[in-house]
Amino acid sequence: MLLLNKSTIQNFYSIDDCMHAVTEAFRLFSDGKVNVPLRTQIVKSDNKSTFLCMPAFCEKNNSASVKVLNMFPDNISRGLASINAQVLNIDAETGAINCLMDGNYVTQLRTGAASGVAFKFLAKQNCHKGALIGAGGQAATQLEAMLIARDLDEVQVSDYDFKRAKDFADQMNEELAKYRTKIVAVSSANEAVSEADLIISVTTSKTPVYDGSLVKAGATVSGVGSYQPQMQETPLELLQRAAKIYFDSKEAVLAEAGDLLQPLQKNQITQTNFIGELGKVISGELTGRSNDEEIIFFKTVGIAAQDLMTAKSIYEKARANQKGLEWE
Amino acid sequence: MLLLNKSTIQNFYSIDDCMHAVTEAFRLFSDGKVNVPLRTQIVKSDNKSTFLCMPAFCEKNNSASVKVLNMFPDNISRGLASINAQVLNIDAETGAINCLMDGNYVTQLRTGAASGVAFKFLAKQNCHKGALIGAGGQAATQLEAMLIARDLDEVQVSDYDFKRAKDFADQMNEELAKYRTKIVAVSSANEAVSEADLIISVTTSKTPVYDGSLVKAGATVSGVGSYQPQMQETPLELLQRAAKIYFDSKEAVLAEAGDLLQPLQKNQITQTNFIGELGKVISGELTGRSNDEEIIFFKTVGIAAQDLMTAKSIYEKARANQKGLEWE
Repeated sequence: MLLLNKSTIQNFYSIDDCMHAVTEAFRLFSDGKVNVPLRTQIVKSDNKSTFLCMPAFCEKNNSASVKVLNMFPDNISRGLASINAQVLNIDAETGAINCLMDGNYVTQLRTGAASGVAFKFLAKQNCHKGALIGAGGQAATQLEAMLIARDLDEVQVSDYDFKRAKDFADQMNEELAKYRTKIVAVSSANEAVSEADLIISVTTSKTPVYDGSLVKAGATVSGVGSYQPQMQETPLELLQRAAKIYFDSKEAVLAEAGDLLQPLQKNQITQTNFIGELGKVISGELTGRSNDEEIIFFKTVGIAAQDLMTAKSIYEKARANQKGLEWE
Repeated sequence: MLLLNKSTIQNFYSIDDCMHAVTEAFRLFSDGKVNVPLRTQIVKSDNKSTFLCMPAFCEKNNSASVKVLNMFPDNISRGLASINAQVLNIDAETGAINCLMDGNYVTQLRTGAASGVAFKFLAKQNCHKGALIGAGGQAATQLEAMLIARDLDEVQVSDYDFKRAKDFADQMNEELAKYRTKIVAVSSANEAVSEADLIISVTTSKTPVYDGSLVKAGATVSGVGSYQPQMQETPLELLQRAAKIYFDSKEAVLAEAGDLLQPLQKNQITQTNFIGELGKVISGELTGRSNDEEIIFFKTVGIAAQDLMTAKSIYEKARANQKGLEWE
């Protein structure tokens, strides 16, 4: 069995690699080719700490995986990571469990890559400015995927904690210097979105984090944060102004994402501009952007197909480059 | 994360250790203290190859685990192992995934330990002879658990392939020499059971593997093999002669075990002598054996609580003895 920790994966596997894997994941998923049983979920008696177990299988490209992810929000107050996760990659031809890899990093990669793929397929060609709202654990891969999708002059980063935004921007200016994009911390999300062609929000907020009326015509927005029904980071006005709304999985979004569930329940929006899944844009079954004026909203809650295809591509690239620790 | 392969585990962890863990597992399970969601199962289009994912959690003793087990029966014809499995042990206080261990060996240990615990609690005190029917992958731990439960003079081993029984007996006489019990291969299961006080059957047979009328009064029988509805290794007459029948999990046995499902469906037996779960004998809620003449049948299909408690005890003993490979 091959063992891959985060620093090893970072050493040979890029977000660009992951964007290719996630493109394939979305396409296969929307084509009904990925078998994803309902994930098992055990919640502790504190009603917060959660054990998740997420298997996935794609016969078509011979891959299977299991992600085990434990979310313990109270860990933060104890100085511990709130998420512990590992992914087992499985050879679907023999059932051999051939790789264990850092599941937290796989999640960061595939979540960032989802926004990157959405921008690649849905954003207008000429983009200059980006906005990133939320500078937490998922922010780095989101930012890099945005820079891969379009060649930007500047990305403005905001966070409810300005110092966190500032520290993040400083670190990213160093780590992502090769993209030659200026990363700037700003004190308000509204300031960031008002000039942006590409917008990512990645927060756990229960109330909208920016003013939807400020978003420019032609902008493409990826909503990453709202992955539970009580979370709502995206303003109603953005949904109303959006010409087209796409999903990673329509079923999962309409089961989990407060961003859409809440305004639907209150009859503040209809499903008229719900176009469908990004995977069908990738396969050519659905059209994407029609002109440079449309506002497009992409909502992602994350699907096991992304973990499956990301783990497969990480494993294969590790083998090809003789990376990782061989055990047993 | 601690990594434990089979040879490392063998080096510090005994079947006796596992019998203590499984005793606790059965007790907690029957007391409703183990949270076991329905396992997820993905079956490939060949209708044989199966990916299983089995999480379990016990808040009471702060443990959680996930067993990933892939059963690919056609692997055997390709010279590969038919089962690939790993167990992740989880600290239920923090969600940290603290250990990866050989899931195949954990399965062998806890399956053998189930028979051992059943004999310990249900067999008459003075036993002299044992019978083991089936000399496949699960046989070694079954045999050793039997020898731990009672001090036997001789165990007769039979298999549909006599050479396999012979090779197994030779190997066990060496490996288990410390128990001073003679392990003998015999050419028929009937020969083995007719003198035995303790009997284990561990086959995948779809038809009974011995004549139930030959079983002695006072014998205790552990049925391990029939874990699917189409499998039936235990003869009807044994079930009819048994004064008392116990289970690891009554619900699981009555969902999965052809040994009982088939005669129940054909109205060949009733549930009158179904006493209940071994865990309730352990806790004192149910009585076990009443005299040395009763024939007792214990049916086990294996439950996730066994994996959970076995993994926890392996992990803790490994830490205490500084065994295993520390990774990352």
